[in-house]
Amino acid sequence: MAETDFHQITKRVHQFVKDRDWDQFHSPKNLSMALIVEVAEMMEHFQWMTEEQSSNLSQEKLAKIELELADIQIYLLSLADKLQLNLLDAVDKKLALNALKYPAEKVRGSSKKYTEYK
Amino acid sequence: MAETDFHQITKRVHQFVKDRDWDQFHSPKNLSMALIVEVAEMMEHFQWMTEEQSSNLSQEKLAKIELELADIQIYLLSLADKLQLNLLDAVDKKLALNALKYPAEKVRGSSKKYTEYK
Amino acid sequence: MAETDFHQITKRVHQFVKDRDWDQFHSPKNLSMALIVEVAEMMEHFQWMTEEQSSNLSQEKLAKIELELADIQIYLLSLADKLQLNLLDAVDKKLALNALKYPAEKVRGSSKKYTEYK
Amino acid sequence: MAETDFHQITKRVHQFVKDRDWDQFHSPKNLSMALIVEVAEMMEHFQWMTEEQSSNLSQEKLAKIELELADIQIYLLSLADKLQLNLLDAVDKKLALNALKYPAEKVRGSSKKYTEYK
Repeated sequence: MAETDFHQITKRVHQFVKDRDWDQFHSPKNLSMALIVEVAEMMEHFQWMTEEQSSNLSQEKLAKIELELADIQIYLLSLADKLQLNLLDAVDKKLALNALKYPAEKVRGSSKKYTEYK
Repeated sequence: MAETDFHQITKRVHQFVKDRDWDQFHSPKNLSMALIVEVAEMMEHFQWMTEEQSSNLSQEKLAKIELELADIQIYLLSLADKLQLNLLDAVDKKLALNALKYPAEKVRGSSKKYTEYK
Repeated sequence: MAETDFHQITKRVHQFVKDRDWDQFHSPKNLSMALIVEVAEMMEHFQWMTEEQSSNLSQEKLAKIELELADIQIYLLSLADKLQLNLLDAVDKKLALNALKYPAEKVRGSSKKYTEYK
Repeated sequence: MAETDFHQITKRVHQFVKDRDWDQFHSPKNLSMALIVEVAEMMEHFQWMTEEQSSNLSQEKLAKIELELADIQIYLLSLADKLQLNLLDAVDKKLALNALKYPAEKVRGSSKKYTEYK
């Protein structure tokens, strides 16, 4: 079976951390903190925008947000790697659960239902 | 070129949202909020643990955290999809930038340096 | 000098934690995590709302958010107490700094300026 | 009845925002985002520290964290003000509820119980 994207990136991130001997700081607890800090940095771009503005970003803004999203992805892979979890399998499992939990015909288009189900 | 993991999952997440007509709620601003809420739910598992405990999770705890990580990944892909960004390319770009920013020989093993560089 | 609100509440929170012997879990690091988890729980109420909806909450929703805000305040006081910081003095200091940083005549009413200054 | 700390600070924060005509950006939704961003900035100081290090901060670090805590308090008061909630009453109410929910003799000193009860 071909090596997947997720696995390749996980390996690169793993090597990056190892080369710098940063593994000692990367307890799952600490990585969870680093992850939320990165998400907050990304979210900060949106905090004073209207929803509409957030859908019409300048190229400059978009380029910044792209790199923030990458940081989030990198820490997410690091954390999964540290916990020896396969993120790809996890997503498969969760999408299947979500399909059972939110049947399309039942929740379609209703923000009220959506909110309640969340 | 073979379709990649990221693209396949993105498509499935995209379809899931479309089938439920939830796209109307998924402005980038709102998705950034949903993403941080999911990360906080995951981080909550670690908040009273020592770092050592966070590296020695019970199977039960690990199973819960696995699904939380999946939720984070799903929202991250949704947000990238919404902004028409390729998360895979973004990670490539960011890893290259990080290699320049944190040369291994300069920052290796020092929490002080690590902290400052962050 | 009369005892202030902040001091009275801080004392009550301090005693509450002491009575339960929870101080052992309340390192500043852990309290910072607990604080962000509480903020995320509060923010979750707003994530799929429009800004306008967030300004017109039902009584039921408002009552829930009120208790979430209290949780945030309690952890914030706990953290300041743990670090032996006087939150009241800190706010005084910060408001004075902000007045210098954001002169009213310079930043008034401009979201662009506001965003840049943030 | 004497005017309280909370009320005085709330008034000052209220006036600060008004003088800058920033009220237009301060929907409860947006303020909840600003609040979590501030908490993340504060938490970032702790992310690579051990718990013990977080209890033994340098004066320089402590001075930075003090101002971050002030920012959190300011946004928290702004949000409560916007929702016309009295933060002081909310804390009173919540502390009474917590005393019922976590009876001291039942939960004392047990991290296991503490975690479950949370």
